[in-house]
Amino acid sequence: MPMLIGIDVGGTNLRLGVVEIDAAGLVKPRLLEEMRFQADFSSLCQLHQQAPELAWQQILSTIAKAIHTVATKYPEVSAVGIGFPGFIAPDTQQILQSPNFPGLCNVDLSADLSALIGLPVITENDALAAAYGEYVMHPERISNLIYIGLGTGVGGGLILNGQPFQGQHGVAMEVGHIIVQENGRRCGCGNSGCMEQYASASGVAISYFDATQQQRSAADIARLAESGNELATAAYTLAGKSLAQALAHILKVVDVSEVIIGGGMSGAWALLAPSFQQQLDQDLIPALRGAVNVRVSTMGDRAGIVGAAMLASRLTYADSVMRGDPHMQQRLA
Amino acid sequence: MPMLIGIDVGGTNLRLGVVEIDAAGLVKPRLLEEMRFQADFSSLCQLHQQAPELAWQQILSTIAKAIHTVATKYPEVSAVGIGFPGFIAPDTQQILQSPNFPGLCNVDLSADLSALIGLPVITENDALAAAYGEYVMHPERISNLIYIGLGTGVGGGLILNGQPFQGQHGVAMEVGHIIVQENGRRCGCGNSGCMEQYASASGVAISYFDATQQQRSAADIARLAESGNELATAAYTLAGKSLAQALAHILKVVDVSEVIIGGGMSGAWALLAPSFQQQLDQDLIPALRGAVNVRVSTMGDRAGIVGAAMLASRLTYADSVMRGDPHMQQRLA
Repeated sequence: MPMLIGIDVGGTNLRLGVVEIDAAGLVKPRLLEEMRFQADFSSLCQLHQQAPELAWQQILSTIAKAIHTVATKYPEVSAVGIGFPGFIAPDTQQILQSPNFPGLCNVDLSADLSALIGLPVITENDALAAAYGEYVMHPERISNLIYIGLGTGVGGGLILNGQPFQGQHGVAMEVGHIIVQENGRRCGCGNSGCMEQYASASGVAISYFDATQQQRSAADIARLAESGNELATAAYTLAGKSLAQALAHILKVVDVSEVIIGGGMSGAWALLAPSFQQQLDQDLIPALRGAVNVRVSTMGDRAGIVGAAMLASRLTYADSVMRGDPHMQQRLA
Repeated sequence: MPMLIGIDVGGTNLRLGVVEIDAAGLVKPRLLEEMRFQADFSSLCQLHQQAPELAWQQILSTIAKAIHTVATKYPEVSAVGIGFPGFIAPDTQQILQSPNFPGLCNVDLSADLSALIGLPVITENDALAAAYGEYVMHPERISNLIYIGLGTGVGGGLILNGQPFQGQHGVAMEVGHIIVQENGRRCGCGNSGCMEQYASASGVAISYFDATQQQRSAADIARLAESGNELATAAYTLAGKSLAQALAHILKVVDVSEVIIGGGMSGAWALLAPSFQQQLDQDLIPALRGAVNVRVSTMGDRAGIVGAAMLASRLTYADSVMRGDPHMQQRLA
């Protein structure tokens, strides 16, 4: 069976999976193995901000080593897909810029890594890779999907007609930076009031800190909210509302029926859902009310790994095969 | 030379044009003739709201008569394209609903009109037809385009990879209903604070009325602003700002480089531009600053007519031919 490696690169670790696909396209891809490697890439970049080439070489070598760890065990692996948190040029696949990797500009992960490991490599924005993973593994036959990942920050990915949609500058679905509060909280992007300042894990921590002067993690605040703490609940209420405001904007632009919410914060969906649903019902144009399915990801972290691997499979296989979609197979045949 | 009729249906009149295309695809389509017919469709629908079928039959017969007026002169006409102000089902082309045509639901303009005139008919949302017209006639080789039409209301259309983008329910780019003011002005759609309540001609009139208690048209207010009236200027400043806020949201979702502003209000662009540009520069993610071309339409009303005709040409001709794009011709050849 053809095999691929999918990697999700984060600021503090990288997660890697081996994905097996059915060349006959009869079954969905399978994640055979999943690994997590500690890798303080963000600190490394900060340390070498004056000499980013140094940081880059270490990042490359860490990723290559992680790949070698499994490539020996699975010699069938034919390509590697990587989800990377940054703006990726849609034509050249260059990493233009990455907020989590300060100093890193215009690097070519696909080419540099491929030279090290001797396999074809494809690089895509991490949220778009996760969107693609959710799309490929979706139990229903869909063609369009919006993915929003609520983590430390907020990322987004859009699948249109079964294709990952990158935008002309690789910044499509930068939905964490949709402004939901005029003159709101300052954001790392330089603007104010961006959705991720309210709906991400950091955003929830800021909301709670503003109300209590106490520094707590989003997970701690979730536990407080669950035990009835009103200020903790209010932080999640604001997060849910902000997410819905941004999603209403998104749906008025692209009109897509299927929305998946992923990322660590989606684990606290019960706390986000009430204000989210209320605001979404209020903001949607009437024609779309009841016509949009918003679901919490059941794939969690695996969406990014599987999505990256499946993007890599596009280097060698047809869409229908990698999707494991017999209907589509038949249509193409 | 192949010829097509393009029609832009409005609430109070319909505009019709005969478009000639070069079957060899070497030159851009030409608008041979343009006509305007008075037709109080909105009042008609209001009058017959209890019996919309009556209104519909009259609308059909008025459009058919207008077509006959020119079809006798141009027997080469092979198809008719219609831009209609409403939600159009992407699969069946049915008009699902139209705010300007109250009572009209689930009517099939393409089929009903085709039966009357004996020519194939295609129906599309009017702003999307205008977007397509702007795309087809664009002097540069582009693949993606955002069109925003500022008229009595605000419509939008998106061209992706040279294709009109309708969305799954035909409500993509309903950007007039992007909310720019929380708890803002009530909108006909049922929500509050929609962009068109500030950036359309009606929106400008409301802003001016709120400040002065005087009912003036947007055109009158433009003249007042040009002669230095501060409250009139403020109404346009708010319009430009609101448009930019919505456009920033749109660009963070679809990341398209080319934006065309059309509709009657675009004639007052000099009054809209300062606040528009300031707000857009402020709201865009830094990666897109300077990377987006916003231009005022030079086609005006003709965009909708030409776009509708070119959509009709898709019924019979290949994309490259109708676009009059020799480069694309060569690529396809």
